[in-house]
Order: sequence, then structure tokens, then C-alpha cells
Amino acid sequence: MSRYAIGVDFGSESGRAVVVDVADGRQLATAAWSYSNGVIDERLPIEQAVPLKPDWALQDPEDYLRVFRETVPAVLRQAGVDAEDVIGLGIDFTACTMMPTLADGTPLALLPEYRANPHAWVKLWKHHAAQPEADRINETAERTGQAWLPKYGGKISSEWFFSKALQILDEAPDVYARADRLIEAADWVIWRLTGVETRNATTAGYKALWSKGEGFPDRGYFEALDPRLADVVDAKMSREISPTGDRAGGLTPEAAEWTGLRVGTAVAVANVDAHVSVPAATVTEPGRMVMIMGTSTCHMVLGEEEHLVPGICGYVEDGIIPGYFGYEAGQSCVGDHFAWFTEHAVPESYQVEARQRGLDIHVLLQEQAGLLAPGESGLLALDWWNGNRSVLVDAELGGLLVGATLATTAPEIYRALIEATAYGTRVIMEALETNGVPVNEVIACGGLADKSPLIMQIYADVTGRPFRLSASDQTPALGSAMFGAVAAGADAGGHATIEDAARAMARLKDLTYEPNAEATAVYDVLFREYVRLHDYFGRGENTVMKTLRGLRARAKAGEV
Amino acid sequence: MSRYAIGVDFGSESGRAVVVDVADGRQLATAAWSYSNGVIDERLPIEQAVPLKPDWALQDPEDYLRVFRETVPAVLRQAGVDAEDVIGLGIDFTACTMMPTLADGTPLALLPEYRANPHAWVKLWKHHAAQPEADRINETAERTGQAWLPKYGGKISSEWFFSKALQILDEAPDVYARADRLIEAADWVIWRLTGVETRNATTAGYKALWSKGEGFPDRGYFEALDPRLADVVDAKMSREISPTGDRAGGLTPEAAEWTGLRVGTAVAVANVDAHVSVPAATVTEPGRMVMIMGTSTCHMVLGEEEHLVPGICGYVEDGIIPGYFGYEAGQSCVGDHFAWFTEHAVPESYQVEARQRGLDIHVLLQEQAGLLAPGESGLLALDWWNGNRSVLVDAELGGLLVGATLATTAPEIYRALIEATAYGTRVIMEALETNGVPVNEVIACGGLADKSPLIMQIYADVTGRPFRLSASDQTPALGSAMFGAVAAGADAGGHATIEDAARAMARLKDLTYEPNAEATAVYDVLFREYVRLHDYFGRGENTVMKTLRGLRARAKAGEV
Repeated sequence: MSRYAIGVDFGSESGRAVVVDVADGRQLATAAWSYSNGVIDERLPIEQAVPLKPDWALQDPEDYLRVFRETVPAVLRQAGVDAEDVIGLGIDFTACTMMPTLADGTPLALLPEYRANPHAWVKLWKHHAAQPEADRINETAERTGQAWLPKYGGKISSEWFFSKALQILDEAPDVYARADRLIEAADWVIWRLTGVETRNATTAGYKALWSKGEGFPDRGYFEALDPRLADVVDAKMSREISPTGDRAGGLTPEAAEWTGLRVGTAVAVANVDAHVSVPAATVTEPGRMVMIMGTSTCHMVLGEEEHLVPGICGYVEDGIIPGYFGYEAGQSCVGDHFAWFTEHAVPESYQVEARQRGLDIHVLLQEQAGLLAPGESGLLALDWWNGNRSVLVDAELGGLLVGATLATTAPEIYRALIEATAYGTRVIMEALETNGVPVNEVIACGGLADKSPLIMQIYADVTGRPFRLSASDQTPALGSAMFGAVAAGADAGGHATIEDAARAMARLKDLTYEPNAEATAVYDVLFREYVRLHDYFGRGENTVMKTLRGLRARAKAGEV
Repeated sequence: MSRYAIGVDFGSESGRAVVVDVADGRQLATAAWSYSNGVIDERLPIEQAVPLKPDWALQDPEDYLRVFRETVPAVLRQAGVDAEDVIGLGIDFTACTMMPTLADGTPLALLPEYRANPHAWVKLWKHHAAQPEADRINETAERTGQAWLPKYGGKISSEWFFSKALQILDEAPDVYARADRLIEAADWVIWRLTGVETRNATTAGYKALWSKGEGFPDRGYFEALDPRLADVVDAKMSREISPTGDRAGGLTPEAAEWTGLRVGTAVAVANVDAHVSVPAATVTEPGRMVMIMGTSTCHMVLGEEEHLVPGICGYVEDGIIPGYFGYEAGQSCVGDHFAWFTEHAVPESYQVEARQRGLDIHVLLQEQAGLLAPGESGLLALDWWNGNRSVLVDAELGGLLVGATLATTAPEIYRALIEATAYGTRVIMEALETNGVPVNEVIACGGLADKSPLIMQIYADVTGRPFRLSASDQTPALGSAMFGAVAAGADAGGHATIEDAARAMARLKDLTYEPNAEATAVYDVLFREYVRLHDYFGRGENTVMKTLRGLRARAKAGEV
């Protein structure tokens, strides 16, 4: 008798569910649903239409629950799977994506008195307006010699939990005071499904400065940051952190009604989209990096030992696979980069041709960019349109394009942007290897990896490493289903460990992008130039990007 | 009884004629004609379709003669002017735009045996493929201590006469050998009109290293450059240089037929579009800069004394107005910059809106860019899409854009490109003033100046100087007509001097763009950042632009 698990993956723009056979990982059906309110970055989606400042990115918590209602019944129906045969459910989420709630889990954004306050809403991972708070967190950590700081590459990001929490406190102290809980959206969703408030080890470890050995930073540190923040962990969070793979609880009757699943179906502790993809991409051992390539890219690699790697997002013991240190790095602008380009910089003639030929504009641009040899565009870019996560950890950096001439074409720029993201990846790989964490091969997953042979080949050529692809087109959701199968346990027909689940359920495609030595030789030259610009603009020698950002903010605020 | 003069202005894409009343400068009619073969930069317009390498830009000499036939009879007809009342004709041209001919003036490009050889065609001013030759000319001049070198800003350009002549010798020695004459297109046109080969002082002085006091560089210098070039001046050029304002000759019967003018009508010595615009913009004294703003920009200012100004294109005694040193600087990418942008980087939505509203795309972009405050784009660009003429004199530099984010829009980039060209202008002004040549006010002319209040205001704000506009919408052609009136002389109803002609015939618009102090304060900050990037990328500290250009050339040549 077949047993099934369901995985639900919450992305930046949409959520998607898969139903998977726990015996072999076969995906029987998938369904996606785009959030009604998507990424909220201009104004709140309410009657008053409250405008947002630059760098804000919010979401609507109700969109997350709609994902369950819209997708889970759909995949059951499509797959013809009986809810009785579904033994477990797992979810993964973008992170840090967090919100303030009441003690019963009600998001403050749903309360009429807070609905027009942007700070009551969910702060999406790419909300970058908490940079001043991140700066303070870093300065205070340096000043007080916090031992955890070097583990996060020496600098924490504006995207992370305490940056966002502190921004709420700074700018909306009433919201902060009213918030009984500050919680990752990932954990909030599990709370809604099971009625049990848990805190997952992955977001706690990678985004909220928690570690298995040391717990959270101590009260004195938070007090030094802001006296009102001294008790944030005990008052609004929790010190009980649930390990990856654990069962959070069973579905409540209400959640069973949303999903069409049995009451009591095992629900795994929440996880992060990138991290959950690692075993789903067959990786449960060191040396093979998993890259999850979507709007942004996460780079995950396991290590047997503890190493400090400057500028990575962090490493967490047991953070990905129990028994290993899970190293995470990231690039904040990858698919977003190409999407920006097609929206803001591609001439009409290409759009017309794409329509006439029935092609997606990206397919057309990649077709033309693919005709170019390495170096032929004459262009080099710094892929910092959305700042730099690894290894500079600086959201206030900006994009750069150099080498344009009057003969420069859109496909040339497009290729230069692809190459720039590949150089960014190579910087991360070299930082890891230099510091003792080998990266011999890459397993890529996510929409960009599946859809873009050109991008994969450029990445292989630029990094000089083979790139393989996860067989699933829904790797995170598959990973979540795998954790759902582990939460259900072997006795219920699931799996005892994530390694067991990976062996049974994870696959690679029969396709390898091998680096081309001639191309790599050209890219070596370009990469040296990239690194030089990277260091010049990114490490403080020329701070023009920050000056520009400051002037822009002043102008937008009407101060000039 | 009214007397008229005709001016014909040869631009990069087209030629245009005006007929003007010599008493008051009133333009009675204008007519333009676009060259059949335009700028030839991809392949020769012949059956074999010979492809051209990057950085080439040629023209078809026959296009120039067609301009006379297409425009002069048209303006006479439109204006109802009798050819008997036309006392003189002047022409101005882009420069250095040069070609090889036989002894009788037949362009080599018209000979069947040379027609498929790109070197037989006219090399347009913006032909930039002679950079290796320019480098050799500069190195040899430095090594042999040529006194003329500092007068040209310390470096001569790939655009200039001997760079282009030497490229012919290097790459097509048979063309060089067969060429009885190497001649500016400006002088060639006069030759065709009058039957007399003259060489005008302006192109000789600004583009061919000639000066009133010293003549051309000596034979030894040319020999050091290449022994085959030793006698280039005596063998293929001329040491007889005709001053600005002189009469070259009278129209031949053949030219009279092309133009519909009288045989013997006075024809002025050839001149350059930028230089001829100075008196047409009312300037016959120091302190007021004339900027001719089109595909590129020329900056002209008169000085009473001789000053060395690093990086300007040069200064020539009597080169603009007799009695003054005429200083010239240039930016090689201005209107071309904005045209590149609309062709290669403006999204469809803007094109659709422009069509729906019946607007030129530039008008729409300027409307939206005009809503932004200084600094609001968050962007800064180096305006080097076509290299840098002044003050770096380096055609191999490339464009740069810094500060882009995922919120960056096309009008923001467009504004940044406008501002970049304004910073480039300010660099030139500061170089002149630092070296003793004051620039208190600017008179702008050319299409960009007339059509773009936003551009004018940004230039005023960035430079902190008032900008006024020439009243004529055809300033160069008016200037040529003025020189035609001077060639005819006072006795024939024309003018005795160019100053007399300027007093009678030149006007400014009743409109001044005054700098806004608040905007200038923001631009001062941005200009400092511009200068820092300008020096970093332009003065040898980071040569990435050249590396990129080198890789591009190798890739295009199939070497990688």
C-alpha cells in the first residue's frame, strides 16, 4: 500500500504544494497559488493605501493560509490520493520572514487598530529597510565582543530576525509593545496548522543568532542594544527550539478542513526553503554544494568541522542535516536581477519578436546571449542591484555595469548580468574553500536552474566546477515532503531519518554541465577584474554606492 | 536690394542648407537631406557587402555632393530667392573626416579596383579604429619631444588626420600609395565646388597638427613614425593653408548646375561645424563658451593668451576668430548616448505610451526624468559609451553606470546619462579655468539644446553657469552663410569681417537657463563622486575598460 507525504513551499510570490510517494519520491501532483497581495513594496493593500518607504517589502499573512486551501486539496484531487494515505506534511518558507502576533497567534496586521501600520505586517526576507538596525546590532556585537559574531561571517544582515525586530521597536514602539510574539512566518504557519507554537532550529540558527551549544545571545547584549529589548527572547520568542525533522504536532480539525487531510496528520517542524532542498537534492554529505536559484540564490554546503568563513550567512551545527555543520551563503539578486532587466531595460523590438515567436522574453534573450563568446559583450557587472549578501553582507551596495559602448545590445547586457551572478557565486565558493570548506561540485535546483541551460553552462564555466540538477522541479516542496515523511516516522510508513528519506526519495537529472576549459580561461581574467571592482566598491575604498543611496533617500523624502 | 548667402552644414547623418539675408541673418528657408548611406559602420554599401570591424565608421563621398543637389535648389525655391542675389556660399563639416583621392580629386572609393577596400572610403570623425596609430603618434611625439604635443592637451586622438592616414598606411599600403591626395572631406567638397584645392586653417590646425607659426611637424618626425610617411605633407597634402573667412574660389559651371546658383558665386574656405558656430552664436570675444550639442558636443572658447590646457582637443591661433586663440574641447558621446539608450534600453511600455500620446520617446523620457530631483535616481554614470575625448583623450574607455537597484527605472537611467554628460562638460570647464581660460557663461546650439529644456537646466545646475541659446535652429549653417558673406566681401553687399557679420547676422534667444543653487549643491556632491570615478577608471589606476575592450575584440575576431 502506497504512502504519501505532502510538502508545501512558500516562496516570495507564491506557494506550491506537491504530493509525493514516500517510497520513491515520485511527485504525483503539484499546484501553485500566487499570493493575492504578492510582495507589498509600494503601498499597503488596504483602503487607505499607506505608502511604503524605499527598501520595504511586506506580505499579507492571510495569503499563507490561502495557499493551503488553494493547493493541498488540488494536489490530492489531481493525484487521486486518499487523505487516509497521507502520512505527513512538511513546509518550508523564505527566511527571515517574520511578523508580530498576539498570544493566540493572531497577526497584528489583522487587527483594525494596527492594519494601517506597516510594521504590523509580515516583513518579507527581502525587506531591506532595517539596515540602520543591522548596523547597530553589528557595532554593539563588536564592541561587546560577542562570540557568535564571527560565526555569521562577522556581520549580520538587515534581513535577519533581530534587525527586523529592532526596526519595529525603533519606528513603531506601540506595535512592538502590543506584539505578544515575534515569530518567523514559517513557525506561524505550523502554529496555524497544529495549534502548537514551535520554533524551528534552522531559522533560529541561521537568522536569529541561536546555536545548539550557546542558545541565544545573552540578556546583557540585548540590553546594550536597547534596554526595551533586554527580554525579547523570553517575552516574545522562546528558548525551546525544535530540531529539524521533528514532529511539531498533528493537524487541527480546522487545518484538516483547509487541506482536506486527516485530523492529526503528522506535521514536521518548519524549515527553510533553501535548507530543506539540500537532502532533496541528494546531498547529505560534505563537498557538494546545493544552490537554490530563484529570485535570490542560497548556497548550502555541509562540513564535518567548524570553520569561520568571513562573509557567509552563517553555519549552524545540525542546521541542515543532523551531524554536520551546515554552511549557508547567499546572493540577494539573481532571478530578480533578470526580471528587473526584462521589465526595465529590454527594448520593444525584443518583446515583439518574443511574442511573434511565442517565446518567453528570457528564452529569447538567452538564445541571443548564448551566441556570444565569453568576453564578447565587452561588459562586466557587479550583481548588487539588491545589495550583497555574501560575502560583503551589505544591503546598501548598488549595481554596477562597466564597458558599455554605443554598440552594446540588450542580450549583451543580459549575459553580463548572468555572468555577474556567476562571479558572485565564485567569490562565495572561494571564500568557503579558502577557509576549509571544500566545494567540488554543485547541485542546482530552482526555476532558474531548470529553465536555463545557458545560465548553468556560464556558471560551470565561470566557477570551473561541474553543475548537476536536482531531478525534481519542486525541490524545496519535495524536501518538505521528505521531512513530513520523517515526522510521520518509519512505523507509520515514512522514514526514520532524513538520510533514509534522501536515499529513497531524492534524485538527480541525468545531465551534467561540465566547465569548458577555454571559457574558464577567459572567465578567469574577467573574474580577477570582478574581484577588483568588488573589493574597491564593496570594502570601503570607494563608497559612492552609499553616497548615491543616501542622496536618493533624501530626495525621496523631499529633503533636497 | 536684399543680398543672400547660403550655408551648408554637413553633419554625421545628413546635410542641410539655409539661405540667409546677409543684412540681418534672417533664415528664409532651410532644407535637409539624409545621406543615402548614412554612417557606414557594419558593412560597405556595395554588392559584396564587405563587413567592417568594430569601431569603424565610414561615409560615401557621393552623399556629400548629393546634399548640394538636394538642398540648395530647394531652399532657393522655398525662399523665392533669385540666384543673382546670392552673393556667397560657405560650408562646414564634421572633422576630422578625411579620404584618399586621385590628383584630380576622384575619391579612391569610386574606383572599381578599390571600391571593396574600406580604407578607400571616407573615414568619418567617429571612426575610432585608428587607436593603435594614435598611440604610436603620441609615443613617438613624446619620445622625440615634439613641441606641438602639449598644445593638443598632451595626447592626440584616434579621430585625427594623421591617426587615420597612418591606419591607411598600416593596413592598406596599396591604398596609401595610390592616394595622390589625403584630404579633409570639408576641403574636398570645396574643391568639387570651385575646382580649386584648398586646405582650411581650422581642420589643419585642430586636426592635423598645423600651426600658423610652426606649420606641420617636421619631416623627421613623420619619418620616425614610419619612413614611408616622411613626405606625407608635401606628397599628399599641402603647406598652403587658407585662413578662415577667405574666398576659396567661385562656383564652377558644374557646381552651379548642381546648386542652381550663379557660376562664379563666391565660395568660402571650408570650415568645421563647431568652429563656424561660434560667431553664429554671437561670440567673437573671450569668456563665453559655445557648446554645439548634437550626437557629440564641441566646446569652443576664445582666449586672448596662449595657455596649455591638459586634455583639451587643442588651441589654434586664429583658429576660430582671427586675433584670438581658439580653444576646443569635446565630448564624443552626447546625443548618441541618448539615442543608444532609446534604441537599446527603453522598455516597450514607454514606447507604447509615447505612441499613444503622439510624443517622441525622448520627450516622454524627459518629461518623466524631469519629475526627479537631483540625486533622486540614485545613479551615477561615466559618459564614455564612445570613449572620452576631453580631457582624457582615450577612445578605448567604456561606459559605466553605478547605483542601480531593483527599483531603478528607465527615466532614472536616462536622467543619469544626461547628468553624466553634464559632469563631463564641467570637467572640461574646470580644466580650462584652472589653466587660465575663463568660462563665465555658455551659449548652446544644436538639436539637443533647442529641443531639451530639461537637458539645458541640468547642464546649468551641474556646471553652476547660465546657459543661453543661439536663436538659429541651424547655427552651423548660419555660420557658414556668414562666412559665405565674408568671402563675398563688403563691396559685393556682404561683410568685411566675421565680427561685422556676427553683429549683423547672429542672435540669441530671449531665454536663459539660470543655475538653481539648491540643485547645484547636490550636483557638487555627485560631481565629486564623478571625478573620483573619472580619475580611477580614466587615468590608469583601474584599466578594466581596456581589458574588456581587448577581450571583446579578441572574441569578435574568433580568437577565444
